[in-house]
Amino acid sequence: MNDQSQTPSTPTVRLLPKAEARAIRHGFPWVYANELVTDRRTRALPAGTIAQLEDSNRTALGLVAVNPASKIICRMLDRDADATIDQAWFAARIRRALRHRETLYTTPFYRLVHAESDGLPGVIVDRFGDVVVMQPNAAWADRLQDALVAAIVDVLAVDTVVINGTGRARGLEGLDDYLGVASGTAPTGPIAVSMNNATYLADVMGGQKTGLFYDQRPNHAFAAQLAKGGTMLDVFSHVGGFGLAALAQGATRVLAIDGSAPALDLAMQGAHAMGVSDKLETRRGDAFDTLAALADEGAQFDVVICDPPAFAPSRNALDAGLRAYERVARLAAPLVADGGYLGLCSCSHAADLTKFRNACSRGIGRAGRRGQIIHTGFAGPDHPLMPHLAESGYLKAVFYRL
Amino acid sequence: MNDQSQTPSTPTVRLLPKAEARAIRHGFPWVYANELVTDRRTRALPAGTIAQLEDSNRTALGLVAVNPASKIICRMLDRDADATIDQAWFAARIRRALRHRETLYTTPFYRLVHAESDGLPGVIVDRFGDVVVMQPNAAWADRLQDALVAAIVDVLAVDTVVINGTGRARGLEGLDDYLGVASGTAPTGPIAVSMNNATYLADVMGGQKTGLFYDQRPNHAFAAQLAKGGTMLDVFSHVGGFGLAALAQGATRVLAIDGSAPALDLAMQGAHAMGVSDKLETRRGDAFDTLAALADEGAQFDVVICDPPAFAPSRNALDAGLRAYERVARLAAPLVADGGYLGLCSCSHAADLTKFRNACSRGIGRAGRRGQIIHTGFAGPDHPLMPHLAESGYLKAVFYRL
Repeated sequence: MNDQSQTPSTPTVRLLPKAEARAIRHGFPWVYANELVTDRRTRALPAGTIAQLEDSNRTALGLVAVNPASKIICRMLDRDADATIDQAWFAARIRRALRHRETLYTTPFYRLVHAESDGLPGVIVDRFGDVVVMQPNAAWADRLQDALVAAIVDVLAVDTVVINGTGRARGLEGLDDYLGVASGTAPTGPIAVSMNNATYLADVMGGQKTGLFYDQRPNHAFAAQLAKGGTMLDVFSHVGGFGLAALAQGATRVLAIDGSAPALDLAMQGAHAMGVSDKLETRRGDAFDTLAALADEGAQFDVVICDPPAFAPSRNALDAGLRAYERVARLAAPLVADGGYLGLCSCSHAADLTKFRNACSRGIGRAGRRGQIIHTGFAGPDHPLMPHLAESGYLKAVFYRL
Repeated sequence: MNDQSQTPSTPTVRLLPKAEARAIRHGFPWVYANELVTDRRTRALPAGTIAQLEDSNRTALGLVAVNPASKIICRMLDRDADATIDQAWFAARIRRALRHRETLYTTPFYRLVHAESDGLPGVIVDRFGDVVVMQPNAAWADRLQDALVAAIVDVLAVDTVVINGTGRARGLEGLDDYLGVASGTAPTGPIAVSMNNATYLADVMGGQKTGLFYDQRPNHAFAAQLAKGGTMLDVFSHVGGFGLAALAQGATRVLAIDGSAPALDLAMQGAHAMGVSDKLETRRGDAFDTLAALADEGAQFDVVICDPPAFAPSRNALDAGLRAYERVARLAAPLVADGGYLGLCSCSHAADLTKFRNACSRGIGRAGRRGQIIHTGFAGPDHPLMPHLAESGYLKAVFYRL
């Protein structure tokens, strides 16, 4: 394919001679800024422009979204350089993503689109029944938002599409924050979400990310099974992810700790909706302080879960992050009854499984406890990974028996 | 503790000055032969002798089982150097292991003792209801078999204890093969085992290892969920691990491939017991040949699973093993329907997750297919790992959507 065959509206961008087209040909979804010919014409492309990508020999590689302001300057949209990115194109991708989720889940509560892995680079779509929350974390999704939203509404037959354009990822793309409703009307209160037989309340207009973390679903289920008939301490509980799953599975008592009063309030509302609010206690406070205070009280639980925010969000923060994970493990281990369980989670990209696990094991050892690893879990199957980015699977949950 | 305080019957072994006692103090369970003072007295200890281990400064580290014939010359039994290894000691370990399995499972079918991780180094115990199969893969377990068997019978109130002393691990300890019954009477036929709502038939007197592989239970469950309402190809099926779980979950048709006619016969007997034998087809043959033949036939399945024997049982075999895993992926991928699933398993210690996953992704690519990784699973939680040996978790199952 050469320039003459293109429609006038589709610009062309080209890999530098030194750039390796093999990775792209083998499915790698990105071109970094230092791999592309960034002449004045390319630098002038509006963020999110759809373009044809060529290798340095002018052979077409596919259709990409270009953002001259981002380190990830191209994101592969379609290997067919002649594809048209319109509502029908979006609908086909969404139908394919939907088919996978409908295989996995019997109720419409899941991550529907997990960005690159679902063929929509930088786009996150979480479904809460009739309400859908989209995070457009790449410029092209802002630019083509109308067609994307129309496809979602059409394929899913949902009422409401919320756009949650907040969070770190948009900054890397040079995009402003934005929160609004692209279709339908904003939900007037939290949405009841059914997961692992528990009821969660998701505040999609004001919560963290899209309001609820679906990624932990299989780890919630695993922990809940351990807590059946016993007690659980759920640290960094957010809206009660682990704790409410445990109560649904027959835990006798759950203590949820979080720094956010609104999150704990939603956890308690969830427990009310499930009819188990008498078994949930919430405590607002700093997790480290509260863990230490509970140890002073001599408190013990059959299951202790710590699901902190990303302590190592970047490579620079890795060492400090690993020390923080070790400290969490050291403070949490004394609170686990003999023969009980400790589940430790990390959502840090930079801390790989081996490093995270070693930090946890060290912390447990420093607390004078010993344990076996009984389970290692990742994000659920509605969060697929591209094989080329598999190392970057961010979520890990390691369960010990002490 | 010094020599004078020991009972005359408990010998002492000592670490070499160069040996690092820190690992042992931090929970590492083994001493290698090149770390121990192997004087004539130590070399003369009968395989499986219980001894007190000291560091080079004669400080007691604990009670170990010594086998001068093994590269793993000491296995830590108890950090208390004054412990007595008798039936009561075994019973305490077994009760602790049992409590964990009773938390996890509602029916008595599980790995009860997973060697070092459950405090009984080298000892594997699988439970099939009232029948227990033990693999004594370390010399001390042979030597103390009577107390160990008595403790199992007492704690579990089971009828039969089968000793399956076959397999590679005993050779490394210099032990002969042995198959027999240590308590009760040998089962006269295969045992019906309930797992993931399927019925498996385990031939504990003549099958592989202990007759059934409990380690794949969570991966069976995951695959079965994908196959609901669809078709599955179960390659290296053994007694139908993945296939029968899929039929229990509502798969419409399963084709099971294995090289062993007795294994396929047990798979079919399991399907009969479940009332779904009309939905199971078995084909005996070489897996590679059969995969190629199915591709020639143009066969496609909603889910394809390949769970081969260890292709990379040792480091020397790693490269050849990874090529074999890649070849399996390459031959299996064309048999997966568009939007269907491919589950690839490895039980090779030498092939770590990253290497195995890369080999699989390469094979899928070479077949001209693309996929996302939707799930990575390991052995079930009745197969705990010591943190110090966590890297050696042998079983991996990687699930792709193509």
